[in-house]
Amino acid sequence: MPHRTVGSAIHLSGQLPYRDGELLGQGVVGRDVELEAAQELARHAALNALAAAVQAVGDLDRVRIVQMLVFVASTPDFGEQSQVANAASELLIEVLGENGRHARTAIGVAGLPLNSPVEIQIICTAV
Amino acid sequence: MPHRTVGSAIHLSGQLPYRDGELLGQGVVGRDVELEAAQELARHAALNALAAAVQAVGDLDRVRIVQMLVFVASTPDFGEQSQVANAASELLIEVLGENGRHARTAIGVAGLPLNSPVEIQIICTAV
Amino acid sequence: MPHRTVGSAIHLSGQLPYRDGELLGQGVVGRDVELEAAQELARHAALNALAAAVQAVGDLDRVRIVQMLVFVASTPDFGEQSQVANAASELLIEVLGENGRHARTAIGVAGLPLNSPVEIQIICTAV
Repeated sequence: MPHRTVGSAIHLSGQLPYRDGELLGQGVVGRDVELEAAQELARHAALNALAAAVQAVGDLDRVRIVQMLVFVASTPDFGEQSQVANAASELLIEVLGENGRHARTAIGVAGLPLNSPVEIQIICTAV
Repeated sequence: MPHRTVGSAIHLSGQLPYRDGELLGQGVVGRDVELEAAQELARHAALNALAAAVQAVGDLDRVRIVQMLVFVASTPDFGEQSQVANAASELLIEVLGENGRHARTAIGVAGLPLNSPVEIQIICTAV
Repeated sequence: MPHRTVGSAIHLSGQLPYRDGELLGQGVVGRDVELEAAQELARHAALNALAAAVQAVGDLDRVRIVQMLVFVASTPDFGEQSQVANAASELLIEVLGENGRHARTAIGVAGLPLNSPVEIQIICTAV
Protein backbone atom coordinates (compact mmCIF):
# COMPACT_ATOMS: atom_id res chain seq x y z
CA MET A 1 0.00 0.00 0.00
CA PRO A 2 1.29 3.48 -0.76
CA HIS A 3 1.09 4.91 2.78
CA ARG A 4 0.26 4.19 6.40
CA THR A 5 -0.35 6.63 9.24
CA VAL A 6 0.60 6.54 12.92
CA GLY A 7 -0.36 9.54 15.03
CA SER A 8 0.24 12.51 12.76
CA ALA A 9 3.11 10.83 10.87
CA ILE A 10 2.38 9.50 7.39
CA HIS A 11 4.85 6.86 6.20
CA LEU A 12 5.07 6.56 2.43
CA SER A 13 6.35 3.43 0.72
CA GLY A 14 9.71 3.69 -1.05
CA GLN A 15 9.37 5.38 -4.46
CA LEU A 16 11.30 4.62 -7.62
CA PRO A 17 11.77 6.98 -10.58
CA TYR A 18 8.78 5.78 -12.57
CA ARG A 19 6.97 7.90 -15.15
CA ASP A 20 3.88 6.63 -16.96
CA GLY A 21 4.57 3.14 -15.64
CA GLU A 22 8.12 3.05 -16.97
CA LEU A 23 11.28 3.01 -14.84
CA LEU A 24 13.39 5.90 -16.16
CA GLY A 25 16.80 4.37 -15.59
CA GLN A 26 18.67 1.30 -14.42
CA GLY A 27 22.11 0.51 -13.10
CA VAL A 28 24.65 1.55 -10.51
CA VAL A 29 25.68 5.19 -10.10
CA GLY A 30 29.40 5.63 -10.58
CA ARG A 31 29.51 2.61 -12.91
CA ASP A 32 26.52 2.74 -15.31
CA VAL A 33 24.87 6.05 -14.43
CA GLU A 34 26.38 9.55 -14.28
CA LEU A 35 25.77 12.00 -11.42
CA GLU A 36 23.51 14.27 -13.49
CA ALA A 37 21.37 11.38 -14.67
CA ALA A 38 21.09 10.17 -11.08
CA GLN A 39 19.95 13.64 -9.98
CA GLU A 40 17.25 13.62 -12.65
CA LEU A 41 16.10 10.20 -11.43
CA ALA A 42 16.08 11.47 -7.84
CA ARG A 43 13.81 14.33 -8.90
CA HIS A 44 11.39 11.86 -10.51
CA ALA A 45 11.36 9.62 -7.45
CA ALA A 46 10.69 12.69 -5.29
CA LEU A 47 7.83 13.71 -7.58
CA ASN A 48 6.31 10.27 -7.13
CA ALA A 49 6.71 10.55 -3.36
CA LEU A 50 5.06 13.97 -3.54
CA ALA A 51 2.14 12.49 -5.49
CA ALA A 52 1.78 9.77 -2.85
CA ALA A 53 1.89 12.45 -0.14
CA VAL A 54 -0.85 14.45 -1.85
CA GLN A 55 -2.99 11.34 -2.11
CA ALA A 56 -2.44 10.65 1.61
CA VAL A 57 -3.02 14.22 2.80
CA GLY A 58 -5.68 15.16 0.25
CA ASP A 59 -4.28 18.56 -0.70
CA LEU A 60 -0.83 19.72 -1.88
CA ASP A 61 -1.03 22.85 0.25
CA ARG A 62 -1.31 20.79 3.41
CA VAL A 63 1.66 18.46 2.78
CA ARG A 64 4.65 18.97 5.06
CA ILE A 65 7.73 16.77 4.55
CA VAL A 66 9.34 15.50 7.77
CA GLN A 67 12.06 13.09 6.78
CA MET A 68 13.57 11.76 3.57
CA LEU A 69 15.81 8.73 3.17
CA VAL A 70 17.61 8.71 -0.19
CA PHE A 71 19.05 5.41 -1.33
CA VAL A 72 21.53 5.60 -4.21
CA ALA A 73 22.68 2.34 -5.82
CA SER A 74 26.37 3.12 -6.08
CA THR A 75 29.88 1.76 -6.19
CA PRO A 76 31.97 1.64 -2.98
CA ASP A 77 34.07 4.56 -4.25
CA PHE A 78 31.21 6.88 -5.23
CA GLY A 79 30.91 9.50 -2.50
CA GLU A 80 28.42 11.95 -4.04
CA GLN A 81 25.17 10.53 -2.61
CA SER A 82 24.47 13.94 -1.05
CA GLN A 83 24.56 15.64 -4.45
CA VAL A 84 22.06 13.11 -5.77
CA ALA A 85 19.84 13.68 -2.75
CA ASN A 86 20.13 17.47 -3.10
CA ALA A 87 18.22 17.26 -6.39
CA ALA A 88 15.30 15.61 -4.58
CA SER A 89 15.47 18.02 -1.64
CA GLU A 90 15.49 21.05 -3.92
CA LEU A 91 12.47 19.81 -5.80
CA LEU A 92 10.48 19.38 -2.58
CA ILE A 93 11.41 22.86 -1.38
CA GLU A 94 10.65 24.35 -4.81
CA VAL A 95 7.15 22.87 -4.76
CA LEU A 96 6.27 23.16 -1.06
CA GLY A 97 8.39 26.07 0.18
CA GLU A 98 9.08 25.92 3.92
CA ASN A 99 6.81 22.85 4.20
CA GLY A 100 9.20 21.04 1.89
CA ARG A 101 12.18 21.33 4.26
CA HIS A 102 13.09 18.04 5.90
CA ALA A 103 15.57 16.02 7.91
CA ARG A 104 17.50 13.87 5.49
CA THR A 105 19.81 10.88 5.26
CA ALA A 106 21.54 9.85 2.03
CA ILE A 107 23.27 6.51 1.67
CA GLY A 108 24.82 4.38 -1.05
CA VAL A 109 23.39 0.89 -1.37
CA ALA A 110 24.47 -2.22 -3.27
CA GLY A 111 21.36 -2.29 -5.44
CA LEU A 112 17.66 -1.48 -5.58
CA PRO A 113 14.45 -3.12 -6.81
CA LEU A 114 14.40 -3.54 -10.61
CA ASN A 115 17.98 -2.25 -10.66
CA SER A 116 16.73 1.29 -10.13
CA PRO A 117 19.61 3.68 -9.44
CA VAL A 118 17.61 5.66 -6.85
CA GLU A 119 14.87 5.05 -4.29
CA ILE A 120 13.28 7.61 -1.95
CA GLN A 121 11.39 7.01 1.28
CA ILE A 122 9.50 9.87 2.88
CA ILE A 123 7.71 10.55 6.15
CA CYS A 124 5.29 13.47 5.89
CA THR A 125 2.45 15.03 7.81
CA ALA A 126 -0.57 17.28 7.19
CA VAL A 127 -0.53 20.92 8.28
CA MET B 1 16.57 -3.19 23.58
CA PRO B 2 13.91 -4.74 21.36
CA HIS B 3 11.62 -1.71 21.04
CA ARG B 4 11.11 1.93 21.95
CA THR B 5 7.95 4.02 21.78
CA VAL B 6 7.36 7.64 20.77
CA GLY B 7 3.77 8.86 20.79
CA SER B 8 1.76 5.95 19.42
CA ALA B 9 4.61 4.69 17.20
CA ILE B 10 6.54 1.64 18.38
CA HIS B 11 9.98 1.28 16.79
CA LEU B 12 11.28 -2.28 16.77
CA SER B 13 14.97 -3.06 16.46
CA GLY B 14 16.13 -4.67 13.22
CA GLN B 15 15.37 -8.40 13.16
CA LEU B 16 17.44 -11.17 11.61
CA PRO B 17 16.16 -14.61 10.56
CA TYR B 18 16.94 -16.38 13.84
CA ARG B 19 15.17 -19.50 15.02
CA ASP B 20 15.92 -21.07 18.41
CA GLY B 21 18.99 -18.85 18.70
CA GLU B 22 20.41 -19.95 15.35
CA LEU B 23 20.79 -17.73 12.27
CA LEU B 24 19.05 -19.65 9.47
CA GLY B 25 21.27 -18.53 6.60
CA GLN B 26 24.33 -16.51 5.66
CA GLY B 27 25.69 -14.88 2.55
CA VAL B 28 24.77 -12.52 -0.23
CA VAL B 29 21.59 -13.00 -2.26
CA GLY B 30 22.37 -13.39 -5.96
CA ARG B 31 25.77 -14.86 -5.13
CA ASP B 32 25.43 -17.37 -2.26
CA VAL B 33 21.69 -17.43 -1.62
CA GLU B 34 18.83 -18.11 -4.06
CA LEU B 35 15.66 -16.01 -4.24
CA GLU B 36 13.45 -18.69 -2.67
CA ALA B 37 15.83 -19.21 0.22
CA ALA B 38 15.93 -15.42 0.75
CA GLN B 39 12.14 -15.32 0.83
CA GLU B 40 12.07 -18.02 3.49
CA LEU B 41 14.60 -16.02 5.53
CA ALA B 42 12.50 -12.89 5.09
CA ARG B 43 9.49 -14.76 6.49
CA HIS B 44 11.51 -15.80 9.54
CA ALA B 45 12.80 -12.27 10.12
CA ALA B 46 9.20 -11.00 9.83
CA LEU B 47 8.04 -13.62 12.35
CA ASN B 48 10.68 -12.38 14.78
CA ALA B 49 9.56 -8.79 14.21
CA LEU B 50 5.99 -9.91 14.84
CA ALA B 51 7.05 -11.58 18.08
CA ALA B 52 8.77 -8.34 19.14
CA ALA B 53 5.63 -6.40 18.20
CA VAL B 54 3.44 -8.70 20.31
CA GLN B 55 5.80 -8.26 23.23
CA ALA B 56 5.62 -4.48 22.81
CA VAL B 57 1.85 -4.27 22.34
CA GLY B 58 0.90 -7.11 24.68
CA ASP B 59 -1.62 -8.81 22.42
CA LEU B 60 -1.40 -10.08 18.81
CA ASP B 61 -4.91 -8.83 18.06
CA ARG B 62 -3.90 -5.26 18.82
CA VAL B 63 -0.75 -5.13 16.64
CA ARG B 64 -0.97 -2.91 13.57
CA ILE B 65 2.05 -2.69 11.27
CA VAL B 66 2.85 0.82 10.00
CA GLN B 67 6.09 0.59 8.08
CA MET B 68 8.58 -2.09 7.11
CA LEU B 69 12.12 -1.58 5.84
CA VAL B 70 13.51 -4.73 4.21
CA PHE B 71 17.27 -4.92 3.79
CA VAL B 72 18.53 -7.62 1.44
CA ALA B 73 22.28 -8.29 1.30
CA SER B 74 22.65 -8.55 -2.46
CA THR B 75 24.93 -8.14 -5.43
CA PRO B 76 24.79 -4.92 -7.50
CA ASP B 77 22.98 -6.76 -10.29
CA PHE B 78 20.30 -8.47 -8.19
CA GLY B 79 17.10 -6.51 -8.72
CA GLU B 80 14.54 -8.73 -6.98
CA GLN B 81 14.57 -7.18 -3.51
CA SER B 82 10.81 -6.56 -3.84
CA GLN B 83 10.14 -10.27 -4.31
CA VAL B 84 12.14 -11.02 -1.16
CA ALA B 85 10.20 -8.35 0.73
CA ASN B 86 6.87 -9.65 -0.61
CA ALA B 87 7.37 -12.86 1.36
CA ALA B 88 7.62 -10.85 4.57
CA SER B 89 4.67 -8.60 3.65
CA GLU B 90 2.46 -11.57 2.83
CA LEU B 91 3.26 -13.23 6.14
CA LEU B 92 2.27 -10.11 8.08
CA ILE B 93 -1.01 -9.79 6.16
CA GLU B 94 -1.72 -13.54 6.56
CA VAL B 95 -1.33 -13.27 10.33
CA LEU B 96 -2.81 -9.82 11.00
CA GLY B 97 -5.21 -9.25 8.10
CA GLU B 98 -5.86 -5.56 7.40
CA ASN B 99 -3.72 -4.63 10.43
CA GLY B 100 -0.78 -6.28 8.71
CA ARG B 101 -0.83 -3.93 5.73
CA HIS B 102 2.04 -1.45 5.74
CA ALA B 103 4.07 1.13 3.88
CA ARG B 104 7.24 -0.58 2.69
CA THR B 105 10.72 0.08 1.34
CA ALA B 106 12.98 -2.69 0.06
CA ILE B 107 16.65 -2.11 -0.65
CA GLY B 108 19.76 -4.10 -1.45
CA VAL B 109 22.67 -3.59 0.91
CA ALA B 110 26.33 -4.57 0.82
CA GLY B 111 26.08 -6.81 3.86
CA LEU B 112 24.32 -7.32 7.18
CA PRO B 113 25.28 -8.25 10.75
CA LEU B 114 26.63 -11.81 11.03
CA ASN B 115 26.45 -12.02 7.23
CA SER B 116 22.69 -12.48 7.43
CA PRO B 117 21.11 -12.27 3.95
CA VAL B 118 18.05 -10.37 5.25
CA GLU B 119 17.18 -7.88 7.98
CA ILE B 120 13.77 -6.36 8.71
CA GLN B 121 12.95 -3.18 10.61
CA ILE B 122 9.36 -2.46 11.58
CA ILE B 123 7.38 0.44 13.02
CA CYS B 124 4.07 -0.69 14.49
CA THR B 125 1.34 0.63 16.74
CA ALA B 126 -1.42 -0.68 19.01
CA VAL B 127 -5.06 -0.56 17.93
CA MET C 1 18.04 21.19 7.94
CA PRO C 2 19.32 19.34 11.01
CA HIS C 3 15.97 18.13 12.35
CA ARG C 4 12.23 18.06 11.79
CA THR C 5 9.45 17.19 14.22
CA VAL C 6 6.19 15.27 13.79
CA GLY C 7 4.06 14.80 16.89
CA SER C 8 6.54 14.13 19.67
CA ALA C 9 9.07 12.46 17.35
CA ILE C 10 12.13 14.45 16.34
CA HIS C 11 13.84 13.20 13.18
CA LEU C 12 17.51 14.13 12.94
CA SER C 13 19.35 14.23 9.65
CA GLY C 14 21.99 11.56 9.08
CA GLN C 15 25.25 12.42 10.87
CA LEU C 16 28.77 11.74 9.70
CA PRO C 17 31.87 11.53 11.95
CA TYR C 18 32.87 15.17 11.61
CA ARG C 19 34.95 17.03 14.19
CA ASP C 20 35.75 20.72 13.81
CA GLY C 21 34.48 20.60 10.23
CA GLU C 22 36.75 17.72 9.26
CA LEU C 23 35.61 14.21 8.36
CA LEU C 24 37.63 11.90 10.63
CA GLY C 25 37.93 8.97 8.25
CA GLN C 26 37.19 7.70 4.76
CA GLY C 27 36.85 4.34 3.10
CA VAL C 28 35.14 1.00 3.38
CA VAL C 29 35.22 -0.99 6.61
CA GLY C 30 36.76 -4.42 6.08
CA ARG C 31 38.86 -3.08 3.21
CA ASP C 32 40.33 0.33 4.16
CA VAL C 33 39.19 0.77 7.76
CA GLU C 34 39.63 -1.57 10.76
CA LEU C 35 36.84 -2.44 13.19
CA GLU C 36 38.30 -0.36 16.02
CA ALA C 37 38.69 2.71 13.83
CA ALA C 38 35.10 2.25 12.64
CA GLN C 39 33.92 2.11 16.25
CA GLU C 40 35.72 5.36 17.01
CA LEU C 41 34.07 6.95 13.97
CA ALA C 42 30.68 5.63 15.10
CA ARG C 43 31.19 7.29 18.48
CA HIS C 44 31.94 10.60 16.75
CA ALA C 45 28.88 10.34 14.52
CA ALA C 46 26.78 9.55 17.61
CA LEU C 47 28.22 12.60 19.39
CA ASN C 48 27.19 14.76 16.44
CA ALA C 49 23.71 13.23 16.52
CA LEU C 50 23.57 13.95 20.24
CA ALA C 51 24.56 17.57 19.62
CA ALA C 52 21.79 17.85 17.02
CA ALA C 53 19.35 16.29 19.51
CA VAL C 54 20.32 18.79 22.20
CA GLN C 55 19.83 21.64 19.76
CA ALA C 56 16.38 20.26 18.85
CA VAL C 57 15.25 19.55 22.43
CA GLY C 58 16.99 22.49 24.07
CA ASP C 59 18.45 20.59 27.03
CA LEU C 60 20.62 17.46 27.29
CA ASP C 61 18.67 16.22 30.33
CA ARG C 62 15.47 16.11 28.32
CA VAL C 63 16.79 14.14 25.30
CA ARG C 64 15.47 10.60 24.97
CA ILE C 65 16.72 8.47 22.06
CA VAL C 66 14.02 6.39 20.34
CA GLN C 67 15.63 4.76 17.32
CA MET C 68 19.06 4.62 15.73
CA LEU C 69 19.93 3.44 12.24
CA VAL C 70 23.64 2.75 11.83
CA PHE C 71 24.99 2.59 8.29
CA VAL C 72 28.44 1.06 7.91
CA ALA C 73 30.13 1.28 4.51
CA SER C 74 31.46 -2.26 4.33
CA THR C 75 32.49 -5.13 2.11
CA PRO C 76 30.01 -7.95 1.37
CA ASP C 77 31.94 -10.27 3.71
CA PHE C 78 32.19 -7.93 6.69
CA GLY C 79 29.62 -9.10 9.22
CA GLU C 80 30.51 -6.99 12.28
CA GLN C 81 28.18 -4.03 11.71
CA SER C 82 26.65 -4.69 15.14
CA GLN C 83 30.02 -4.25 16.85
CA VAL C 84 30.46 -0.90 15.08
CA ALA C 85 26.96 0.14 16.12
CA ASN C 86 27.57 -0.99 19.73
CA ALA C 87 30.17 1.75 20.10
CA ALA C 88 27.54 4.36 19.22
CA SER C 89 24.88 2.75 21.43
CA GLU C 90 27.23 2.60 24.41
CA LEU C 91 28.13 6.26 24.03
CA LEU C 92 24.46 7.29 24.04
CA ILE C 93 23.74 5.18 27.15
CA GLU C 94 26.89 6.49 28.87
CA VAL C 95 25.78 10.09 28.35
CA LEU C 96 22.01 9.78 28.76
CA GLY C 97 21.55 6.70 30.96
CA GLU C 98 18.15 5.05 30.57
CA ASN C 99 17.10 7.86 28.18
CA GLY C 100 19.90 6.78 25.86
CA ARG C 101 18.47 3.28 25.33
CA HIS C 102 16.99 2.80 21.87
CA ALA C 103 15.67 0.45 19.22
CA ARG C 104 18.42 -0.09 16.69
CA THR C 105 19.15 -1.39 13.22
CA ALA C 106 22.68 -1.81 11.86
CA ILE C 107 23.33 -2.45 8.20
CA GLY C 108 26.26 -2.58 5.82
CA VAL C 109 26.02 -0.28 2.82
CA ALA C 110 27.97 0.08 -0.40
CA GLY C 111 29.18 3.58 0.39
CA LEU C 112 28.31 6.82 2.14
CA PRO C 113 28.51 10.56 1.39
CA LEU C 114 32.10 11.80 1.10
CA ASN C 115 33.23 8.16 1.43
CA SER C 116 32.55 8.29 5.15
CA PRO C 117 32.81 4.80 6.69
CA VAL C 118 29.87 5.41 9.06
CA GLU C 119 26.61 7.38 9.12
CA ILE C 120 24.06 7.51 11.94
CA GLN C 121 20.40 8.50 11.77
CA ILE C 122 18.48 9.07 14.98
CA ILE C 123 14.87 9.61 16.01
CA CYS C 124 14.59 11.17 19.46
CA THR C 125 12.03 12.87 21.66
CA ALA C 126 11.87 15.25 24.62
CA VAL C 127 11.02 13.98 28.12
